[in-house]
Amino acid sequence: MGINELLENYKEGSLSLQETLFQLKEQGIEDLGFARIDSARQARTGIPEVIYTPGKTKEQVRQIAERMYKSGIDILATRASEEVFMHVREVVPEVTFNKMARTIVFHHHSNREETKDYIAIVAAGTSDLPVAEEAAETARFLGNKVERIYDVGVAGIHRLFSKIEGIREARVIIVVAGMEGALPSVVGGLVNKPVIAVPTSVGYGANLGGITALLAMLNSCAAGISVVNIDNGFGAACQASLINQLK
Amino acid sequence: MGINELLENYKEGSLSLQETLFQLKEQGIEDLGFARIDSARQARTGIPEVIYTPGKTKEQVRQIAERMYKSGIDILATRASEEVFMHVREVVPEVTFNKMARTIVFHHHSNREETKDYIAIVAAGTSDLPVAEEAAETARFLGNKVERIYDVGVAGIHRLFSKIEGIREARVIIVVAGMEGALPSVVGGLVNKPVIAVPTSVGYGANLGGITALLAMLNSCAAGISVVNIDNGFGAACQASLINQLK
Amino acid sequence: MGINELLENYKEGSLSLQETLFQLKEQGIEDLGFARIDSARQARTGIPEVIYTPGKTKEQVRQIAERMYKSGIDILATRASEEVFMHVREVVPEVTFNKMARTIVFHHHSNREETKDYIAIVAAGTSDLPVAEEAAETARFLGNKVERIYDVGVAGIHRLFSKIEGIREARVIIVVAGMEGALPSVVGGLVNKPVIAVPTSVGYGANLGGITALLAMLNSCAAGISVVNIDNGFGAACQASLINQLK
Amino acid sequence: MGINELLENYKEGSLSLQETLFQLKEQGIEDLGFARIDSARQARTGIPEVIYTPGKTKEQVRQIAERMYKSGIDILATRASEEVFMHVREVVPEVTFNKMARTIVFHHHSNREETKDYIAIVAAGTSDLPVAEEAAETARFLGNKVERIYDVGVAGIHRLFSKIEGIREARVIIVVAGMEGALPSVVGGLVNKPVIAVPTSVGYGANLGGITALLAMLNSCAAGISVVNIDNGFGAACQASLINQLK
Amino acid sequence: MGINELLENYKEGSLSLQETLFQLKEQGIEDLGFARIDSARQARTGIPEVIYTPGKTKEQVRQIAERMYKSGIDILATRASEEVFMHVREVVPEVTFNKMARTIVFHHHSNREETKDYIAIVAAGTSDLPVAEEAAETARFLGNKVERIYDVGVAGIHRLFSKIEGIREARVIIVVAGMEGALPSVVGGLVNKPVIAVPTSVGYGANLGGITALLAMLNSCAAGISVVNIDNGFGAACQASLINQLK
Amino acid sequence: MGINELLENYKEGSLSLQETLFQLKEQGIEDLGFARIDSARQARTGIPEVIYTPGKTKEQVRQIAERMYKSGIDILATRASEEVFMHVREVVPEVTFNKMARTIVFHHHSNREETKDYIAIVAAGTSDLPVAEEAAETARFLGNKVERIYDVGVAGIHRLFSKIEGIREARVIIVVAGMEGALPSVVGGLVNKPVIAVPTSVGYGANLGGITALLAMLNSCAAGISVVNIDNGFGAACQASLINQLK
Amino acid sequence: MGINELLENYKEGSLSLQETLFQLKEQGIEDLGFARIDSARQARTGIPEVIYTPGKTKEQVRQIAERMYKSGIDILATRASEEVFMHVREVVPEVTFNKMARTIVFHHHSNREETKDYIAIVAAGTSDLPVAEEAAETARFLGNKVERIYDVGVAGIHRLFSKIEGIREARVIIVVAGMEGALPSVVGGLVNKPVIAVPTSVGYGANLGGITALLAMLNSCAAGISVVNIDNGFGAACQASLINQLK
Amino acid sequence: MGINELLENYKEGSLSLQETLFQLKEQGIEDLGFARIDSARQARTGIPEVIYTPGKTKEQVRQIAERMYKSGIDILATRASEEVFMHVREVVPEVTFNKMARTIVFHHHSNREETKDYIAIVAAGTSDLPVAEEAAETARFLGNKVERIYDVGVAGIHRLFSKIEGIREARVIIVVAGMEGALPSVVGGLVNKPVIAVPTSVGYGANLGGITALLAMLNSCAAGISVVNIDNGFGAACQASLINQLK
Repeated sequence: MGINELLENYKEGSLSLQETLFQLKEQGIEDLGFARIDSARQARTGIPEVIYTPGKTKEQVRQIAERMYKSGIDILATRASEEVFMHVREVVPEVTFNKMARTIVFHHHSNREETKDYIAIVAAGTSDLPVAEEAAETARFLGNKVERIYDVGVAGIHRLFSKIEGIREARVIIVVAGMEGALPSVVGGLVNKPVIAVPTSVGYGANLGGITALLAMLNSCAAGISVVNIDNGFGAACQASLINQLK
Repeated sequence: MGINELLENYKEGSLSLQETLFQLKEQGIEDLGFARIDSARQARTGIPEVIYTPGKTKEQVRQIAERMYKSGIDILATRASEEVFMHVREVVPEVTFNKMARTIVFHHHSNREETKDYIAIVAAGTSDLPVAEEAAETARFLGNKVERIYDVGVAGIHRLFSKIEGIREARVIIVVAGMEGALPSVVGGLVNKPVIAVPTSVGYGANLGGITALLAMLNSCAAGISVVNIDNGFGAACQASLINQLK
Repeated sequence: MGINELLENYKEGSLSLQETLFQLKEQGIEDLGFARIDSARQARTGIPEVIYTPGKTKEQVRQIAERMYKSGIDILATRASEEVFMHVREVVPEVTFNKMARTIVFHHHSNREETKDYIAIVAAGTSDLPVAEEAAETARFLGNKVERIYDVGVAGIHRLFSKIEGIREARVIIVVAGMEGALPSVVGGLVNKPVIAVPTSVGYGANLGGITALLAMLNSCAAGISVVNIDNGFGAACQASLINQLK
Repeated sequence: MGINELLENYKEGSLSLQETLFQLKEQGIEDLGFARIDSARQARTGIPEVIYTPGKTKEQVRQIAERMYKSGIDILATRASEEVFMHVREVVPEVTFNKMARTIVFHHHSNREETKDYIAIVAAGTSDLPVAEEAAETARFLGNKVERIYDVGVAGIHRLFSKIEGIREARVIIVVAGMEGALPSVVGGLVNKPVIAVPTSVGYGANLGGITALLAMLNSCAAGISVVNIDNGFGAACQASLINQLK
Repeated sequence: MGINELLENYKEGSLSLQETLFQLKEQGIEDLGFARIDSARQARTGIPEVIYTPGKTKEQVRQIAERMYKSGIDILATRASEEVFMHVREVVPEVTFNKMARTIVFHHHSNREETKDYIAIVAAGTSDLPVAEEAAETARFLGNKVERIYDVGVAGIHRLFSKIEGIREARVIIVVAGMEGALPSVVGGLVNKPVIAVPTSVGYGANLGGITALLAMLNSCAAGISVVNIDNGFGAACQASLINQLK
Repeated sequence: MGINELLENYKEGSLSLQETLFQLKEQGIEDLGFARIDSARQARTGIPEVIYTPGKTKEQVRQIAERMYKSGIDILATRASEEVFMHVREVVPEVTFNKMARTIVFHHHSNREETKDYIAIVAAGTSDLPVAEEAAETARFLGNKVERIYDVGVAGIHRLFSKIEGIREARVIIVVAGMEGALPSVVGGLVNKPVIAVPTSVGYGANLGGITALLAMLNSCAAGISVVNIDNGFGAACQASLINQLK
Repeated sequence: MGINELLENYKEGSLSLQETLFQLKEQGIEDLGFARIDSARQARTGIPEVIYTPGKTKEQVRQIAERMYKSGIDILATRASEEVFMHVREVVPEVTFNKMARTIVFHHHSNREETKDYIAIVAAGTSDLPVAEEAAETARFLGNKVERIYDVGVAGIHRLFSKIEGIREARVIIVVAGMEGALPSVVGGLVNKPVIAVPTSVGYGANLGGITALLAMLNSCAAGISVVNIDNGFGAACQASLINQLK
Repeated sequence: MGINELLENYKEGSLSLQETLFQLKEQGIEDLGFARIDSARQARTGIPEVIYTPGKTKEQVRQIAERMYKSGIDILATRASEEVFMHVREVVPEVTFNKMARTIVFHHHSNREETKDYIAIVAAGTSDLPVAEEAAETARFLGNKVERIYDVGVAGIHRLFSKIEGIREARVIIVVAGMEGALPSVVGGLVNKPVIAVPTSVGYGANLGGITALLAMLNSCAAGISVVNIDNGFGAACQASLINQLK
């Protein structure tokens, strides 16, 4: 039953207010049994439904991907193994895989527009690149231009200075760092743009699986910094995209 | 020595490259002995120098405030007690105090411009208001229009729905909540604007002084949310201001 | 020695008070060497003995199951792998396995009665289903009617509203959620029935293996909520069953 | 505008669906500026609005109490100091104070009905009594008959046994304990009624302010137990009341 | 150089005081390169050198065992896998293995004396048996008579009462429990002998790998209880042996 | 009703088995309303009832002390302030106070016997003395001879060596240390007697209120050591007394 | 008995080896009852005995100071309040007090020599100065030349660069920082001298009382950095002094 | 463009100051795509670039090693598996592997000079040797003479005394210990040289993966001790080398 029909039924009295309300809200929800694809989510939150693969079997991922493919919805799957990618490719042949980012991506239209302003993705060390790349792939999936500035950790701070102009000209900046998580503070003190800090689980011992970097970033002495979950390149890119696409 | 003079000295060879560089960077730094006022900070980071009062004596706060006042710099002091306010008022007579927000504010020019777009400040409960008000006062100090939407905690979610339109129309949203910290997830699922979540230390026992709300917000199932330190209304407002004032 | 005999012996003086007492209490305890089956437990606590499989070898599980089978006791084994199920099936042929719930179940009588009132089992996301299903299978094993309401996480809160009536009509509600664990607070604010919250270990990084969801639920701003251990669908169902079967 | 009027306006078209919806939800919300009294809450959740006094000034508590008094709403304020009580008594003369429970209570009608079944409130040690009493006062405020069984900690377990019948005959049991938090496990193994465990902050050192008792209770080897926040006698009583008043 | 020779050299002046001192202390130390066997340890501390196998290769364990065997030292290796046992058996043919306890034991003299008083080893659940057995095997290796009282967890407390006399008559009691770790408190309240509590890592979720049981035991409301590290059956047995063998 | 009478009633049938049992267990329990004095505790556990003063008002302590005094029970109150002592002295004139130990002590008979063997109480630093003295006073209250060996922390280990003989000759050793908690390991490696380690909250920062010393002691590389709660000199003395008084 | 006499006694046989040894070690230990002054400590460890005032009464501090004064020992007391200073001044008239550093200092000889090389003490923010000053005062007490470089936090990194030469030329560098603790990493990447990092408790919320800065410093991506306890300016200065005075 | 050319261009005006600055800083940075080799790092920080292998594929390690080899840079790779070593050996034939230390080392010149003073590396137990060996290999790679003093844990403290002279004569001391981490305190109280403490993850249960040893070392009662991350033998050796090579 479409929205118009629904509303007519209500005015005519064949549907109660309560029922009408819930029916309206149900629009865009399609039931797969184990997971619903929320096709109205993009309109509501600015971020389309995305497949987070951990905890799903490769069959479940393939099934969801196939459904999205057939419904004309673009596909982004995160934290995906190569094996999952192989499975998805059987039903979505043109799908691509970024091994470092662990992302599976498919767009129905190849000539998508990109924002004019870009999101800078700044990463401290080599080991932080999987998270940085997840952010980069997600940001691009959401239609943003992206600039990568990698390997500029604070222990060799001249490397950061040599790239600072490219960071300053971004509209929003994602800073990815593990270990002591100091990079966002340094970047935050040098730019006048919003900085989204992503702690990574890179390190060992007292890094506590990324908790140390997370805590450090939350206590940054530079204002204008906010933080997402450990290794959450995806979430940082979502917020950065919302900011970058503000009119 | 001014910048021009400095650069001439360098070209003439009376200053080394290294010395020149540091001299340039030193511009805008004024030394008070115990604290420097970084008057170039606003240009560099978009956020002017602000007085964080805890750990400073009331005499130190007054001295800093007086210096800023005489230098033509607008004043914001956070986490201030009424006693500190009394002290500052002796040297900056027109200064104002928001008791709930614990902020001291002074502007040299009363007819300041405000942004057209506004920052929505959403708070869960009555006890979260000091943090929400700190965010509101800071955002206004930084030139932003602000809308307050208070007492819309998730345990009576209809209260949130009755205000959702005002939240959706903001350019950026600050959500303040203590206890289980669930409000940002619910708001984040209903809007397509960036959400900055501020955990508060409101609660007791297993709230762990705000750590619980902080952790909950970092694990939000809604994308597009980032988080600042516990009770950090100031920091949330700084980032929101940078976002709200993006061209 | 049966209870009557025991008591006679005592009155006659051939057993001391102390000995009599302990003998009485010992009734229903059968010693397998490595584990006792407490067949009087159901009478005492309302919950029969159940096999928690982790930390037991598959041979041990099979041996316990066989003994229960032969003693006419119904069987529920939780957190069971398919391999353990195969082993048990060799000695209890009619036993069934719910792969998602990881439960092995056998009833001696197929035409068991079910409660008229039902337990609603509400789950936030796809990854929470194993825990939700453990709760559902346990509740049914204990003789309760169960209604499943799945995939109604707070980031798309309209999905919850569309199912709220079915939740409100339950006698008791189990709410299963990982990540930020916000769902019990929202449900608790919408119903006038007891809510048992089950945090899951779903998530990563600062979810701390489920501790974040656990803490959030303990700090819920909605009254009428209590919490069980992380991933403890079984325990939630036990308490829900005691509540649902209150006269 | 009443509900009828609202609905008529909607059918006539002078209100949009969206507006109608929110208006309906707004019913029962009264705005005090700093805190709303949610007078529809009892109907919605079975628990009326209650005043949690920490973080509120004594003036705020008095103002809320006065409003509730004048609106014919019964009053329960928790964690109240004697000073707050004095303030409230100025505007609600008949109000009573339980010093140990730290509760302020007022009922408009003195001949209230009480449930036939009772809630047993079991406490381990003398120091746990403030929390136990908060639970008892709350349960009685909500219309329940209450039985107190105090000072039955596990280090002298015969004391528990001498009271066990009174515990077993309750419809629902609240168990309050600090230190190692073992009492709920022992009680849970002896009864066939739902047990709600309340950890207290009683103890020192490695009790971690009650976290130890909380964790112990969450890991109880007895099924049928659920747990609320540290020192949360109020919350335990709310859930117990919902259970006790199930038809 | 023997002790007598050493002391003579010193009096004659060919060794300095300092050198003499250290030489004396060095007695009984034999250097294997990667690990020294401290054959004087038993005289000094009452506990002989024991092989803790984790972190050692099976070759290292075999080499140490062989050296001890040839030096006439009795062998106890803890946390040993069956594979390590196989390796040791190649060089110490009569060695025995307790699979549940994960201990490898060899005595040069089969007719060893045992203490008249016994150590009671009390365990809560089936999953705690590996730790209980490690304690039992260690205690017996150290020459103590041992009584095992297993499967007497607090959720079915009558099981404990039926065995309490055997516990009370021990000279010292080791209580092994995981999950909420409540058993030592209950036992401690019923006996007038020292109780050594051993928390185990048995459980899941909020058991925090045994930290919960550890904390609970440290906060026991029963006096006369002390605690060892998580899963440390060996250490508990060492202390119990020292106590049991006090004259 | 005395025990004999009770048993006769039972044999005659005027008391049920259950009632008889509970009556028997109730012996020795006297009800004060807010706290029961368990006068049979000493017989049952070897440790008499003791007053732990924190969380009790000075009136409550006085009332309990008076009751014990009149019942001929010796009095030990721990963690007592001088003010509480003053209060108790009003009703028990001969009571004494150890200011450093914060203990209030009264014995009905001045010529009590003392054990021949002694408990050594070893303390690392000056700041650990309150806990060491609590242990010493408790041990003496329980009838033990005590030797104090203070200020022998590991940073000047020669101080320990100069006192080692007096430690070695004790029957049981209590070692009290804060900060890094290393002293029990060193002592444990030098003696063949049971060592009870007491971590103190002495230190700052990463000492975490004594958690660091507690954890260190639990991980001691010396066997034969067990641990009690932070600052729990009382508990250590209870266990030491049970050990010291073993026949 | 002096050392010579002691050794003669030993050779003559009137002292056993053991006794001689302990007597030798006892040299330099003077017993005050509550605290020993270890006057041989400086020879042994390079750091003289120092008075850590917290946990000592002002009378105890005065008594220790007086004894040191009369024995010709220089005095340093740390974490001292002004009140303690007043007390000490009564017995050591020339003593001085640094209010920010909270140190009490007295030297018997005013013309002490200072090292030629200096220790740089680098501090991030105004609130870190008490800890930095404690380090500075301690280092100077130990005979070191000190250079202070304050207010060079990473959020305005040009301030650090303008002072970097003075840091590079030090022989050893102490870096004091709170909040995110990032400064040591940045400094460590710019110098080739050992860096000792001191986390401070400056900050709030997720700074966890300095644990965040501590963890961050331990995870520094710059090599050559080691860390001391939170707020431990004293300890950092001790190690820096040992390094600075290496020949 | 070389440095001279760069500076000439700047004086001539063809390069701006800013550009010149960054170009200068860029010297020595060579871009490999996934990781930059910072060949100027040794000059800047005293520590050359080193390959930390975890998180890098064996291909990446080989590629970096090959580049360093061809550029005439000496190679140290840490935490390397034997498999990685095999891969590197294909391109750097003379490379060596220390299996216990998990280090891969290659020097272009075999006749390197070594410092005259040595670094003592002191280890508590056999299981700590991998970390101690990582420190030893790193220190030697950096040109230092090294003395190993192993298996001198505090539970048999005479073993330490027999080696103390060799420790005292070092210029700087690295102390490696797991479990309770007590060894640095004991060593620190016996020497007048800087001590760098390395906690290891050796132990189980409440050792918390090395956090316990880390905390204990940070709280050492011996002054002059600083601490590095858990298992960070490399970092300790870097700081020790900087100290040992101070002129």
